[in-house]
Amino acid sequence: MSVGVLVAELDSAVTAVHHGGELLGVISFAASGALVAVRKRLDLFGMAVLAAATALGGGIVRDLLIGRTPPAAFTDLTYLSASLLTAFVLYFIAPSPRLTKGPLEIADAIGLGLFCVTGTVIADSAGLGAPTAALLGMTTAIGGGVLRDVLSGEVPSVLRPDQDLYAIPALFGAATTATLLHFDLYRAWTGLLAAAGAIGFRLLARHYQWHAPLARHARD
Amino acid sequence: MSVGVLVAELDSAVTAVHHGGELLGVISFAASGALVAVRKRLDLFGMAVLAAATALGGGIVRDLLIGRTPPAAFTDLTYLSASLLTAFVLYFIAPSPRLTKGPLEIADAIGLGLFCVTGTVIADSAGLGAPTAALLGMTTAIGGGVLRDVLSGEVPSVLRPDQDLYAIPALFGAATTATLLHFDLYRAWTGLLAAAGAIGFRLLARHYQWHAPLARHARD
Amino acid sequence: MSVGVLVAELDSAVTAVHHGGELLGVISFAASGALVAVRKRLDLFGMAVLAAATALGGGIVRDLLIGRTPPAAFTDLTYLSASLLTAFVLYFIAPSPRLTKGPLEIADAIGLGLFCVTGTVIADSAGLGAPTAALLGMTTAIGGGVLRDVLSGEVPSVLRPDQDLYAIPALFGAATTATLLHFDLYRAWTGLLAAAGAIGFRLLARHYQWHAPLARHARD
Repeated sequence: MSVGVLVAELDSAVTAVHHGGELLGVISFAASGALVAVRKRLDLFGMAVLAAATALGGGIVRDLLIGRTPPAAFTDLTYLSASLLTAFVLYFIAPSPRLTKGPLEIADAIGLGLFCVTGTVIADSAGLGAPTAALLGMTTAIGGGVLRDVLSGEVPSVLRPDQDLYAIPALFGAATTATLLHFDLYRAWTGLLAAAGAIGFRLLARHYQWHAPLARHARD
Repeated sequence: MSVGVLVAELDSAVTAVHHGGELLGVISFAASGALVAVRKRLDLFGMAVLAAATALGGGIVRDLLIGRTPPAAFTDLTYLSASLLTAFVLYFIAPSPRLTKGPLEIADAIGLGLFCVTGTVIADSAGLGAPTAALLGMTTAIGGGVLRDVLSGEVPSVLRPDQDLYAIPALFGAATTATLLHFDLYRAWTGLLAAAGAIGFRLLARHYQWHAPLARHARD
Repeated sequence: MSVGVLVAELDSAVTAVHHGGELLGVISFAASGALVAVRKRLDLFGMAVLAAATALGGGIVRDLLIGRTPPAAFTDLTYLSASLLTAFVLYFIAPSPRLTKGPLEIADAIGLGLFCVTGTVIADSAGLGAPTAALLGMTTAIGGGVLRDVLSGEVPSVLRPDQDLYAIPALFGAATTATLLHFDLYRAWTGLLAAAGAIGFRLLARHYQWHAPLARHARD
């Protein structure tokens, strides 16, 4: 009995960490969108749109693909509000990119790791098979950044070879989650482990500058 | 009784104005797409695609987001036909931009004002809450222009700081409409008032060159 | 009886050609995406994404528009696997563009012709009217290429005036198919004829460099 209580308490603590982490991810994604807007010299409205698109875009695309309409981002306004607030704060405090780069990248990795897990879980609960759920999990994690870059007139950074691995850690976390779900081993804490794996992978890729390889004929 | 008849007649007159205005908005949006295509030196097919994308894109995105498939633009072909006809006419008459700029901007403002209202009403009738309905109303009004700019390889003009306020008037009209709907005060004529407010706001922003502010660190 | 058997056998042979052709189209579209990625100096992941987006994008957009979620590309993974394999092979063998240009263009035309027919059939079976089904058929055929170009930061080649006719042959094949369906004349072999017409039209446009016309004022 007391073990059951312990597990339940652990689970609820893990869920709280999970929600907190996801909110942190939303804020971090929103900040990355808002800062791209500033670099592109867009105005306050542009900052708000890019912040919201980056933070919510991946989930919206996932929801459209699994037929969950209207997307969660339009019905539960928590994350939209957090995104807009982030853009607003950055409009006023205007931190130097030098100061925000490190913390932002860590927060972005946290968002990436948690979004690929929750995206996979949501796709799985819509009845999709494991490989599809993993693909949609990765899409959830990287879709917002792709939307941000397309809207600001850039080739999506996730496709550019000068970037450290970004989508691969997300795919790793999503595939781990899909595997856990497939073998009925998914719990709040195993999901958090999968997220931690993706986060660690991304931070290592960042630190050691791991790149995906170029095709031979593009290297010359 | 005679008051009832009067109200009914007024309502039907207002609805006719409404439909006429929406058609004017479609034509004006289509013209803006076709003229961007000309400026980008796209061919007749490019003109037709950009005209249709600009005029119909916002409504298509809205319909996808509320799960109304196929989108109205694919089932009622009136607006598609009007868009293609507009592209075709502009292909032949090729007016000088100097002559069309003023009238086009007024027509575009009319389209913006009416689309933000009708978009909000449609989202509301799909059972969405007021804030979401307002967001989708704004999306309906500005989405086509965003699609036009992404397809022609530009940063969406609605995000650029050198543009006068465009999305904010649309958001104003959409929010007013959502408020009217929420308090059950929406009628054909109150909706038209909301549209008129958005149109007036946009034309004032155009005339007095109101801009959204830039973040401090982007101003230097 | 023997005629019935003959017709059934012919039909199944035609269906096999059809499936084989569609797979050829997927591979060819994927190759075009992967080669654009190489030219843009994207890495292996970028090659995989652009290959999949080009090969599957048109069908995904069509499925979203007719409300078929999740899109077929996410549930039947044959075409996704074929796309990724194509990107992988091109990553290693790295053929010279000079060698691949001709065969690729023929395969691309085959994909275009078959996709516009199958896209129209799928849209029709979702209960859409003939003009809408034809539009969605064309969208299926050209949508992937548009997605490829938007993701790689280019104006979609299908809109550019320096391109030979591409969307018009697709529209021709789709409209023919919609007409056949409307008059209940669609069979595997009439569908294949419609595809062959679109393929021939595209290859003629390629060979004789047929272009859509520019607007007069853009020609100066």
